[in-house]
This record gives sequence, structure tokens and C-alpha cells, in this order.
Amino acid sequence: MNLENISSNRCFGGWHKQYLHDSAVLACRMRFAIYLPPQAAQGDKVPVLYWLSGLTCTDENFMQKAGAQRLAAELGMAIVAPDTSPRGEGVADDAAYDLGQGAGFYLNATQAPWNRHYRMYDYVSRELPALIEAHFPVSQRRAIAGHSMGGHGALICALKRPQDYASVSAFSPIANPLNVPWGQKAFAAYLGEDRQQWLAWDACHLLEQATQLPPMRVDIGLADNFLAEQLKPEALENAARAGGHALQLHRHPGYDHSYYFIASFIEEQLRFHAGHLAG
Amino acid sequence: MNLENISSNRCFGGWHKQYLHDSAVLACRMRFAIYLPPQAAQGDKVPVLYWLSGLTCTDENFMQKAGAQRLAAELGMAIVAPDTSPRGEGVADDAAYDLGQGAGFYLNATQAPWNRHYRMYDYVSRELPALIEAHFPVSQRRAIAGHSMGGHGALICALKRPQDYASVSAFSPIANPLNVPWGQKAFAAYLGEDRQQWLAWDACHLLEQATQLPPMRVDIGLADNFLAEQLKPEALENAARAGGHALQLHRHPGYDHSYYFIASFIEEQLRFHAGHLAG
Repeated sequence: MNLENISSNRCFGGWHKQYLHDSAVLACRMRFAIYLPPQAAQGDKVPVLYWLSGLTCTDENFMQKAGAQRLAAELGMAIVAPDTSPRGEGVADDAAYDLGQGAGFYLNATQAPWNRHYRMYDYVSRELPALIEAHFPVSQRRAIAGHSMGGHGALICALKRPQDYASVSAFSPIANPLNVPWGQKAFAAYLGEDRQQWLAWDACHLLEQATQLPPMRVDIGLADNFLAEQLKPEALENAARAGGHALQLHRHPGYDHSYYFIASFIEEQLRFHAGHLAG
Repeated sequence: MNLENISSNRCFGGWHKQYLHDSAVLACRMRFAIYLPPQAAQGDKVPVLYWLSGLTCTDENFMQKAGAQRLAAELGMAIVAPDTSPRGEGVADDAAYDLGQGAGFYLNATQAPWNRHYRMYDYVSRELPALIEAHFPVSQRRAIAGHSMGGHGALICALKRPQDYASVSAFSPIANPLNVPWGQKAFAAYLGEDRQQWLAWDACHLLEQATQLPPMRVDIGLADNFLAEQLKPEALENAARAGGHALQLHRHPGYDHSYYFIASFIEEQLRFHAGHLAG
């Protein structure tokens, strides 16, 4: 089987496991982590939350730092954390932390050299869920969440495939990559200079156009160093208003961009998803 | 003031902060982390749990991975996490992960070159608590806990200074360093070849001799790779029995030596300490 288990840790009565597999979409070997709650060992098919991490992360950051397993065990929810880009020696890269490996932005690149491997949107929204549903005791009920670059990824997955997700949430998302330095740098590299091509990967643009979307919750910290320049939550609010969509946007005074913020409110986001996954 | 704040993160309504200071005992600059619960900002003097980490760790591992802040915030308890050894360019070191920097074993070294800086017992049991109590809104109520090498450290601190701690706990402690490879290597280097000198730093020996000790809880994972060769919980049980002392030893099937284990049971240990700190 194209699925190699490389670690297993018992955690809150369930299991945290890491796997390697050959991704056809990304044309490289990929690692992901899955948390299987106790219910998954009792014959129940549990729903799955996909978690997309931010710049420089791997599958490990969320699993080690968010404290999510306690709640996933209580709520009977699996969590899958993919890596943040294709990886490996033959995969295009850049010395900067915000381009190339560790910075895939959950889109499908069209420009060389990136277009050979950088198809993270297809990977996280199609190939990985199919693999998970084929090999683990999970149902086809999916939710999606993420942080920063991964918050943007969660939003675009849910906006482009609303039928596939019961709910979507984000911590500190790069909400409007079209109009911020991180997004402009990555989109120019991955998608080219024609900004018309960028629209399909901008959460604010997609939200304005959307006719259907799953319940959406966003949490931001008001002491986040990246808030005004890179995240632009007010653009997301305006887009939701323009599109006539409900958006639960929670602002938290004093909190920053770190996992200390995520850990503080992951319980609220996971209970939000559990309510919709059960529905 | 000899206390330099280098990071602050809001977390569960309180604050996670890191500081640098010049340690007189260790003769070098040291970093520690403190979690101050919301109650500390409301004028209450909160009790402090000291957490001692294991081999290779710094002040960050526990704070990032254990999920303890949620409970500390609920219970109104500060947590202080020191580093695991003296640090810096002028400080003796060894290429191995289990000797030198990152491996101080919470004892006072007597042998050159280690005796110049390696006085972690005096640091964590005397200098650091005095610093914390002088500069933060905390009471003099202390508890102590730790993992692996730090579990051993917590036990010896509580056994050598029982009057100073309301309670002590350990995850997966190196319970009997006299009789295991990690302990023998470190004790030979730090304390010399005369094994009589080792007795004062072995938790099992101290427990057999103890006339007084605070309530003590130990959690171990039965799938811990280090259990039989390095940890020897049965030696601790035998020592408690020989000394006529109560020991709450909890064995957890399937759990290993990782922070996934600690995260799963930190709530039980912190509630144990909260009960005794309030008493």
C-alpha cells in the first residue's frame, strides 16, 4: 500500500500518526499527520477536519502545539494535517521563507518552475481526502480550517468546493492575498503577472461572487503583528457584506499570530465544526 | 533590573512570557518562561508550579506542547519553566545529547570542567524561585513537576527540600539514575567515580531515607521505549515501600515518552497540584 506509517503516539485515548505517501498530484513523496479519536477504534466512521498550516510549517506544528486532540477525542472527530507544500530535492524552492517549499499557498501553480509540483489545492481538496477516506475509519463528512496562509487555504477550498465541507474556519487568515505583500509575491511567482489569473485564488473575490458557502468562522488577534499589512480581515468583512453572506468574525484583544493564540480558541472553533459536522 | 523580557504572548486570558537574566549560581545568562494566569493580573498572588524538562529541552518544549495553560488559567496557577542546563559559549559542553548543555540533571556538579557552571539544583530550587517571588505577583506556595530527566529533578528537589513544596509530580522520571545508563554517564562526569557521592542525587535512595515528603504523583506510559532500561518505576515503588511512603504511581497502557503522553494527562497532574497548593 502506498502509505507508510512512520510514527504512532497514543494521545487522549486515540492515536496521533504520521504517514508518508507518493502524491500523484504533487509528483513527490509527502508526509501528513492524522489524529484518530477513540471513537475511530470502536467501529464508528468519524468525520474529518482538515487543518492547513501557515508559512514554514509542516504537519507537526498544529499537532504539537494547538492542544486540539483533547477536543477531537471528546467530539469524535479525526484531524488531518498535511504539509504546506510539495517537498524534496527535485522540487523547486526559494531561499525566502515565504516562497517555495513551506509556502505552497494551497493553489495550483501555472508558471515554471513551480507548475511541475505546486498543486497544493488539488492535493488538499481532492487527492488527500480520497486517500484518507480509502484507508482510515472515517466518514465523508469534512470540515476545513487553517492558520494564516492555511487560513486562506481553508477559505478558498470551502469557497471553491462548498458542497464538500460542512463548515470552514480560520485563524488569522491572509484574507485578501491580491492586495498584500505575501500574496502578491507568491501569486506573481506561482500564477504569473496577469492579475486576472489571481482572482480565482483570492478569498475576498471568491466570497463576493459566491452563491453558496458553508458556515464560516474566523478568529483574529488584535495584537497580531501582521494584521494590517498582511491579513486584512476588514476586506473579508466587506466581501461578505458585498456578497450577502454571513461571517462570524471574532476579534480578540491582546492576542498575536502565534500558536498561543490558536491554543486559546481552538476549542471554540472545534465545537463550531462539530456542530455542523453532526448536522 | 536584571530581568529582560524577550517575548510576551497572550494565552488563555493570561500571559506567556520569556525572560533572560544573569544567574549568579550558574555564572551565565539564562532564559526561563513563565505563564501568568488571568488571576495574577487581578491582584491575587498566585501559587507557582515549577516544571523541569527532559534531555535536550529548553524552556519552550513544555510551554508549547503540554497544553498546560488552559488549566493554569482555570486553576489560578503560575507555571515557571527553566532551561535544562547552564548555557552559552563559555559553558562546558559535550557533543552527546545526554551530557553537558541540555542535560544538567538538576544537580550540583563537583568535577571539572562541570563544577564551574553546572549547579542546576541550586538554581531551580533556590535562585530561580527567589527571583520569581521578588518580581512577579506570586505567593510563596510552590509545587514542582517534570518529565524524564526533569521528573528526576522534581523528585530530588521535593525530597531534599520537602518543606518548600506543597506537592511533587513526574511524568516518566529517571527514577533511579544510580542504576541506569543515562544516570551513570551523567553522574560519573558531574560527580566523579566515587559512587558514594551519587547517593545524594538519586531519588530512590532519597525516598528510602526520607522522613518527610510532600504528596507525590508519578505517571508513566507502558509503551515508553525507555521504561525498562532508563526509567525503572518499579525501583521507585520499592523505595517508597521501603521508606514507608505513599506513592501514587499511574501506569498508562499504550502511551510513550512523548509530549503526546504528557498532554493527555497534564490535567490530572495539575488538578493534583492545585488541590495541595490550595491546602
